[in-house]
Amino acid sequence: MRTVELIQKKRDGQRLSRAELEFLIDGYVRGEIPDYQMAAWAMAVFFQGMEPEETTDLTLIMASSGDTLDLSAIRGIKVDKHSTGGVADTTTLVVAPLVASTGVPVAKMSGRGLGHTGGTIDKLESIPGFRTALSPQEFISQVNSIGVSVVGQTGELAPADKLLYALRDVTATIESIPLIASSIMSKKIASGADAFVLDVKVGRGAFMKDEEKAVALARAMVQIGTLAGKTTVALVTDMNQPLGRAIGNALEVKEAILTLQGQGPERLTEVCLQLSTEMLLLAGAAATASEARVKLERNLRSGLALEKFKEWLAAQGGDPRVAEDVSLLPQAKFQADVVAPRSGYVQEIDPLALGVTAMHLGAGRETKDSLIDLAVGLELQVSAGDHVEKGGVLARIHASTQEHLGAALSEAGQAFRLGDTQPEAKPLIYRKITAEDV
Amino acid sequence: MRTVELIQKKRDGQRLSRAELEFLIDGYVRGEIPDYQMAAWAMAVFFQGMEPEETTDLTLIMASSGDTLDLSAIRGIKVDKHSTGGVADTTTLVVAPLVASTGVPVAKMSGRGLGHTGGTIDKLESIPGFRTALSPQEFISQVNSIGVSVVGQTGELAPADKLLYALRDVTATIESIPLIASSIMSKKIASGADAFVLDVKVGRGAFMKDEEKAVALARAMVQIGTLAGKTTVALVTDMNQPLGRAIGNALEVKEAILTLQGQGPERLTEVCLQLSTEMLLLAGAAATASEARVKLERNLRSGLALEKFKEWLAAQGGDPRVAEDVSLLPQAKFQADVVAPRSGYVQEIDPLALGVTAMHLGAGRETKDSLIDLAVGLELQVSAGDHVEKGGVLARIHASTQEHLGAALSEAGQAFRLGDTQPEAKPLIYRKITAEDV
Repeated sequence: MRTVELIQKKRDGQRLSRAELEFLIDGYVRGEIPDYQMAAWAMAVFFQGMEPEETTDLTLIMASSGDTLDLSAIRGIKVDKHSTGGVADTTTLVVAPLVASTGVPVAKMSGRGLGHTGGTIDKLESIPGFRTALSPQEFISQVNSIGVSVVGQTGELAPADKLLYALRDVTATIESIPLIASSIMSKKIASGADAFVLDVKVGRGAFMKDEEKAVALARAMVQIGTLAGKTTVALVTDMNQPLGRAIGNALEVKEAILTLQGQGPERLTEVCLQLSTEMLLLAGAAATASEARVKLERNLRSGLALEKFKEWLAAQGGDPRVAEDVSLLPQAKFQADVVAPRSGYVQEIDPLALGVTAMHLGAGRETKDSLIDLAVGLELQVSAGDHVEKGGVLARIHASTQEHLGAALSEAGQAFRLGDTQPEAKPLIYRKITAEDV
Repeated sequence: MRTVELIQKKRDGQRLSRAELEFLIDGYVRGEIPDYQMAAWAMAVFFQGMEPEETTDLTLIMASSGDTLDLSAIRGIKVDKHSTGGVADTTTLVVAPLVASTGVPVAKMSGRGLGHTGGTIDKLESIPGFRTALSPQEFISQVNSIGVSVVGQTGELAPADKLLYALRDVTATIESIPLIASSIMSKKIASGADAFVLDVKVGRGAFMKDEEKAVALARAMVQIGTLAGKTTVALVTDMNQPLGRAIGNALEVKEAILTLQGQGPERLTEVCLQLSTEMLLLAGAAATASEARVKLERNLRSGLALEKFKEWLAAQGGDPRVAEDVSLLPQAKFQADVVAPRSGYVQEIDPLALGVTAMHLGAGRETKDSLIDLAVGLELQVSAGDHVEKGGVLARIHASTQEHLGAALSEAGQAFRLGDTQPEAKPLIYRKITAEDV
């Protein structure tokens, strides 16, 4: 097998076989196939795409290129949830204890944030004492004892994907649906769950800007999961406006607690309930969506979900009192409000602009090595469609320096568009993609 | 300027500016831009193409990346001729002295062969004593004194092209019209001529298999030449059968001598006359094609062209007596004939198969480091359309070992297709492309 012939085959629109992809990926990981040949192959994939079976082969080869987690010691069907990344999106912190409170085990590995979208592990680390680095044994035994654990990636999951992603990043080959799908799914499959619920964000604050591409990505991932023998469902959800109201690590923990108390923002709560519903269905914990929904809403109302949250925090060394007293979370030194320059209806709130503002405040990483500030961020006081008076508060900024505060006030102001008429409400869930749709 | 953004720009179908291409190529030559980014860019060019001005910018940047020849010390308009490479194609050895015999200076740098097509420099080295490595001063002074010199590449012409070509070779990005065109033209422009006549071969024995692609390549090169201020004309000529009858270095020198004596194969003679005609026109040595043709045919008949050939050989240290006695050229130890397995008309003679046979005999290089055998090769005894009796000779093989001879006999036999009816004659010249056509 010659690498240049495999590149040419893909260049000319043909499918590579499992053996050919193994030759390519394994050779690349071993350092026998150079970056320049992989870059040419990746650009050929950008233009020619890959067939579903081909994408699945690539995914499974990357998934088995490093450590894989064996979750078989955990009783029940393990369902993982993955989001492609949004702004004011703290769903995992709500969904994990909520689903666990119904008896469905949640054993989840999460990542850190990069760019304008936050990472679950960063958010969890704003809880005093919380440990995100558990050994596989601790992780599994915690899930078996209290039903939930969320940890940072341990070991080396899918190193082939890590190498390839870094190469794609500098060769303008990120934006390929099969390559994105296989990148995400290779890590998911390596982390050992039996089934997946995917939250594919679409809109100006998401990686996928339009519905067509988001649906294509969702389909590609559901196809991979299905062909790999893992039941997979995807919801394509809106990211044309921030999902919740809080952006920033400790602020999002606070919002998750509010949501677990049944007091969360409507759109965030709804997405959490729908994702949790899908998880219960895949775990076999409910026969119908409405049965799942009833259970979940009851556990929010009854406080069972919040109790599970506290139990979870305690199990990982975190201070469970934060669930009752959010002032125990890190607090930023300076606060100020972004106010409305005129009266009117909030037409749009640009999630990307606010995500970038939060990043500039220190809440997110511009590069992999950036240190983040857990306390800073912003809290929206309005949603799209709301009416505000001139001078009314649009958002509250939390900053660690006066300089940051000033810059964020003017930056965040740009994210709001006010107008005279009430805008039509935007959809929240665009599509659900199951194995039957692909 | 960031390299990844330039790759993305090309990936998305936009034109790169001169400054952007300079950043890319100069950075690559300096080792600041890695192979993997150039490979991704090249694959993006494969899919998106380049605009004529963009291709010209790339060409001129590559042309000026190393040494450039200054031919201004040579009187008159210097016209260079370039062939994309064919089989049994010894035109340069005929055209150079023929054109020089009319008073038009020929100062030509030629290459060595690689693969199944021969290189002029290799052929010349089969002439006892002939020196192909002259200093630029010797080269120029020889052209000024006798009107012709052909040498191997001196100095480092277009090192950017050399680097990029080597990278394209291992990343399946050779087959891109603008990249092929700029690669050829960058070396031509660096070698200093004022005008170019290009012989773009098309057919099974050529790099370009179909007319459409050959015409596209011819257009691209004429565009580059024209935009670079060099008058450029291209002939698209047939390579569905061997052009002449000899394949192999010394054998092709012998055929060139025969042709300069007015006894050459018809198709080879015709291509030489047409290319020479274009050269005379570009040099201003004839007002019309028919005036040029009359001059050229007269010099073939009168022996002036052959005299110029001998003068040229002598000037470069070669033995001019070969022009009268071809037995002074290297002779292979073993000969045998490929004979017709049946009576009939020769339908087709596959030039690629015969080129590969000659390469296996040792006449060509399989890799850059192969040593070649100047004596070996084959001589056709028939042309397409000829009638042969069963057992009649199709070709004579010249080999240096019995083993090679045996293998070549069976290999070469596959190149001939015999049939009952006389096939239609194939065209020889498909198209002429000038600046007005592009």
